[in-house]
Formats: sequence, C-alpha cells, structure tokens
Amino acid sequence: MSERYDIAIIGSGPAGLEAAINAKIRNKNVIIFGSKDFSPKLMKAPKINNYLGFYDVSGAELKAQFEKHIENMGIKITEERINAVYAMGEYFALMVNEKMYEARAVIIATGIENGKPLKGEAEFLGKGVGYCATCDAPLYRGKTVTIVGYNKEAEEEANYVSELASSVYYVPMYRGDLSVNPSIKIVNDKPIEVCGEDSVKELVLEKETLKTDGIFVLRDSISPSQLVPGLEIEDGHIKVDRRMRTNIKRCYAAGDCTGKPYQYIKSAGEGQVAALTAVEEI
Amino acid sequence: MSERYDIAIIGSGPAGLEAAINAKIRNKNVIIFGSKDFSPKLMKAPKINNYLGFYDVSGAELKAQFEKHIENMGIKITEERINAVYAMGEYFALMVNEKMYEARAVIIATGIENGKPLKGEAEFLGKGVGYCATCDAPLYRGKTVTIVGYNKEAEEEANYVSELASSVYYVPMYRGDLSVNPSIKIVNDKPIEVCGEDSVKELVLEKETLKTDGIFVLRDSISPSQLVPGLEIEDGHIKVDRRMRTNIKRCYAAGDCTGKPYQYIKSAGEGQVAALTAVEEI
Ligand SMILES: Cc1cc2nc3c(=O)[nH]c(=O)nc-3n(C[C@H](O)[C@H](O)[C@H](O)COP(=O)(O)OP(=O)(O)OC[C@H]3O[C@@H](n4cnc5c(N)ncnc54)[C@H](O)[C@@H]3O)c2cc1C
Ligand SMILES: Cc1cc2nc3c(=O)[nH]c(=O)nc-3n(C[C@H](O)[C@H](O)[C@H](O)COP(=O)(O)OP(=O)(O)OC[C@H]3O[C@@H](n4cnc5c(N)ncnc54)[C@H](O)[C@@H]3O)c2cc1C
Repeated sequence: MSERYDIAIIGSGPAGLEAAINAKIRNKNVIIFGSKDFSPKLMKAPKINNYLGFYDVSGAELKAQFEKHIENMGIKITEERINAVYAMGEYFALMVNEKMYEARAVIIATGIENGKPLKGEAEFLGKGVGYCATCDAPLYRGKTVTIVGYNKEAEEEANYVSELASSVYYVPMYRGDLSVNPSIKIVNDKPIEVCGEDSVKELVLEKETLKTDGIFVLRDSISPSQLVPGLEIEDGHIKVDRRMRTNIKRCYAAGDCTGKPYQYIKSAGEGQVAALTAVEEI
Repeated sequence: MSERYDIAIIGSGPAGLEAAINAKIRNKNVIIFGSKDFSPKLMKAPKINNYLGFYDVSGAELKAQFEKHIENMGIKITEERINAVYAMGEYFALMVNEKMYEARAVIIATGIENGKPLKGEAEFLGKGVGYCATCDAPLYRGKTVTIVGYNKEAEEEANYVSELASSVYYVPMYRGDLSVNPSIKIVNDKPIEVCGEDSVKELVLEKETLKTDGIFVLRDSISPSQLVPGLEIEDGHIKVDRRMRTNIKRCYAAGDCTGKPYQYIKSAGEGQVAALTAVEEI
C-alpha cells in the first residue's frame, strides 16, 4: 500500500510553497507536487515591487529566497505532474500516470493557464481531445495520436503513448532540445484548429494539416475541473469560501486558481489559510 | 478644505503596508495611518518561520525589511489614530480628535484587540464608558473622568480631557515613563470592573476603587463597529467578500480584523486584494 499523506499540495508557486511551510510547521506529513523551478511565473518576472519585504527584486531573486526558505525547513518538491484527483471518501487518490499517491486532504495551487484553447478544442473534448495522454493512451492502441506539448514533461507522455499508438506526432510549443523516442515525428509548426465530425479527424497547423485520431494538449496546468472531477467552478475559477474550502470536503484551493487579482502575496496568503484550515479539519 | 485622498488606509501592520504599496504602484493618492513602529505584533514576535521568503527571522528583522520597502517607495506613515470614520456619500470623513481627513475609499487594517473587555465594560458602553476620550470629553466638563490607557498615545487624550474635566485619573496599562499634565492623578493598579446604576459610578481596581463619572478605555485598536458606524460584523470580525469589500460601498478591510487565521502573510495578501479592489472601484 502506498503511504498516506496528511496533506498533498498540487503546485509549487507561492501558494503551494506557503501552504507547505504552514503544514510542515504544524507537524503534518505533507507532500508538494510541482517543479524544482517552482513556477515559470516566478522565474520570468522581470521586476517585483509588490511583495512586502522585498523591493525591486527580479523573479529569479525572489525564487532564490523562497528556495532558501523551504530548504531550511526540509521541504522538498516532488517533481511529478498530477493528472487527476479522485475523492475516495476517507482519502484522495492523486494520479501521476501509472502511479498513485494518497492523502487525507488536498490543496490545489495550480495557478492559471493563460493560453487560449485551440479552435475546436472545447468542442471535441472527450471526442478525441484529451489532457492526460498517459491516462487515455489505451484508447489509441494502433491509432494515430498528436501531442501538443507546452513543456518538457509532455515529452515523457509522448514516449509512453508511442509504445501503444501506431504513430505519434509531437508539436513542441517551447524552445530547446527534445528527447523523444525516434519513432515520434516532430512537427515544428503552430496549431490552429481541431477538426472532425463525430470525433477528431485533423489538426490544422499553420503550414500543414495532420490526420489524427486523437489530440492531447499538454499545457503547464490542466483546468481544475479537469483535474478534480466534481469541483465547483465560478467565473472560470475554483469557488472557495474565506477559509479556502472548495465544494469538496477536505479539498482546498489557493492562489491564481481561485480568482483575481493574480499576484504573489495574495497567492501566498491564501496558501497559508488553506493549509491552516486543512490542519484544523483533518 | 482638506485634501481629498483616493484611498485612506487605517492601520500599519502587514495588511495596511501591503495595501499602501499596491495603491501607490497604481498611482493613487494614498494616506496610511498608524505608527512608525508599524505594529506591536510585528515588533514583539520572537521568531517567524511562516512568511514565505524569510526563514527564522525576528519580528524586528522583518519589520526592518518592511521599512526598507516602504521607504524605497516613498510611503510615509501618518502617525495619527483614527477615532471614527463616517460615510458621507461621495467620500469618507476620517476623524482624528479635532482634525478630519477625507478619502474616496477606506481600507480598515486595524488588527484585532486581544485584551478581554473589563467586567461591566460592554454593559456601560455609552452610559459612561467610551473609547474616544477627545470625542466625548465635552460631556464631562467639570466632572471626574478615568482613563485606562494601553499605549502612550492615550496620554495625549488624557491631557486633552484634563482641560475640561474637573479631575482625571490615568491608569497606565504599559510600562515606561509617562508624560501627562501634572493635574492628572496616575493610578498604578489593575482595573477589574466597571460599576454603576443607570450610568457609570465606579471603577473597581485590584487595590482600590475610584469614584468616576466616565471611563475611557483606550486600547491599541478600537472595535471596527465602533470605528465605522454601520459596519457589518460576523462572529466578531468585519464581514468581507473575497475581494475584501465590506457591506459599506468603497470601504474595504484586510488582515486580522477580517478573521482567522491571524497571520502576517494572510494579512498582507488581503491588504493587496483590498487595495486592488479599491483601485478598480474608485
Ligand atoms: C511575467 C510575469 C510577471 C509577473 N509579475 C508579478 C509581480 O510583479 N507581482 C505579482 O504579485 N505577481 C506577478 N505576476 C503574477 C504571479 O506570477 C502569479 O500571480 C503567481 O505566480 C500565482 O501563484 P500560484 O502559486 O497561484 O501559481 P503559479 O505561480 O502559477 O504556480 C503554479 C505551479 O503549479 C504547477 N502545476 C500546475 N498544475 C500542476 C499539476 N497538475 N501537477 C503538478 N504541478 C502543477 C505549475 O507548473 C506551477 O509551477 C507575474 C506573472 C508573470 C507571468
Ligand atoms: C507575539 C506575537 C507573535 C506572532 N508571531 C507570528 C508569526 O510567527 N507568524 C505570523 O504569521 N503571525 C504571527 N503573529 C500574528 C501577527 O502578528 C498578526 O496576524 C498580524 O500582525 C496582523 O496584521 P494586521 O496588519 O492585520 O494587524 P496588526 O499587525 O495588528 O496592525 C494593526 C495596526 O493598526 C494600528 N491601528 C489600529 N487601530 C488604529 C486606528 N484607529 N488608527 C490608526 N492606527 C490604528 C495598530 O496600532 C497596529 O499598528 C504574532 C503575533 C504576536 C502578538
């Protein structure tokens, strides 16, 4: 049986980090999923003036301060992307491809996705369009699959899919070296539209059109309602009360994913509240 | 006519400071009331581990970082205690004894008062017990007034009252030198209970009982409903929505005064949200 954590935190931006700090101070057995770089939105900020205590710092500098903080507290980021969270009654099951983690409470701190959906993406969702390649790969045994990857983690998913599908296209939406299986065809082009009839038939890109049975769009974050089935959404954000409770018992949310303004210290403050509420309620 | 500010912030703890920073970044004409030491709750903290970016710092160290931040941004604390805030329609009137400030929006960031009320205090409120000596002093012309002062600012109020009242007792609830008018009788004793019939008659202390017509209890912060008449309170805290709006238009609240958990970064995050909502709505 896998270890059951007290609190699992999904996301390693300011909201997730501050949640982890507070859960740890309260002596909870906590796991935090995300990336060692914490958050692209932190790394990329040119200049930050509105985080009380730090004036005129770059995102990289603030990130270094956060890193020192969690290292001193013995908090380590588990570098995995959670694909789905299921409420099992007593606990939550957090799925990472084939692996599963268990926790009594979950804090969603996944940020928001700025990218616009592709034309046709919403229409064909569940009809050939998916967000978790490794979850749905078995559906495409012997078929053609296209993966639009927004980050390096998507490469692993593509590799996994390529073991089942007969052919895989990979459309990288980022720069840098790729490490995908040689059988995968890399397409350096900009996706425009998902087309089909009852289900997906084609992905139209700027320069060419790919015939495909399935399309996985693997962005930095999947939508919260996709991540946690049954989660209540309001105006495009996770609905929370003042203690950061969602509509699902022992499932909390914090940061950009709960609504505007999108800011670091707002996110951190909410991460703290979410963690302290979780500590009280588990 | 007095200058009309865009946003007035009452309180200089983390909530008020972060609100000021954000209002200033958005180019608003902002005034922040409080103390140059920011907050006794900041100064007194022995060790802080849960403010993301700072690990194992003392309250004094964190305060120094906050100070550097606001100084770099040209934000200055106006050292006045606001006694009352009146919604005038177009604007708010903020009263400081005889003086008045005007602002289009108000952010309440006054923290919470931990001290238990005295026995009988609530019962005799408005019947001889008051929280703003300089406001109500005229009622006590030629009478005996007792002032229970929780901080040095209370001394000034005592001095003012002593010009009107026939006799004034001053009960200091803090250590250190006093600078009150020579006519004021200093009572070094612990207040226990307010007694009277229709109105206040006595203040019972541990060692003696003072006959008095009025008692002013001057704590670090007065209760929000006292400060802003008509403000909606829920479970002892200012009721706010997720954007930090109170029930009064263009009046926002942030920090400990809005509810638990009582923490720095929760307060700062809320100060940011309050300021950004105010900026949007004025
Ligand atoms: C260029 C730029 C400049 C900015 N400047 C400022 C500024 O000066 N001041 C300011 O206050 N704000 C600024 N912001 C906004 C700020 O970055 C965000 O408000 C903040 O990062 C939100 O924090 P968060 O913790 O909610 O989410 P994020 O910082 O977005 O972090 C979420 C993390 O969760 C991870 N994640 C998502 N889904 C999963 C999953 N399923 N499994 C595992 N991990 C997952 C993501 O990869 C990401 O690392 C800026 C943003 C940008 C893009
Ligand atoms: C000893 C101690 C240790 C603590 N340690 C921690 C810790 O480790 N981590 C943590 O997160 N939290 C800690 N806290 C809690 C933290 O101090 C509070 O949550 C935080 O200070 C609240 O911030 P605030 O801005 O809401 O209010 P406050 O910090 O209380 O500031 C409010 C300010 O407003 C001023 N004010 C009030 N009324 C008026 C008025 N009418 N006019 C003008 N000014 C006014 C007050 O004088 C005060 O300066 C500690 C508290 C104490 C007492």
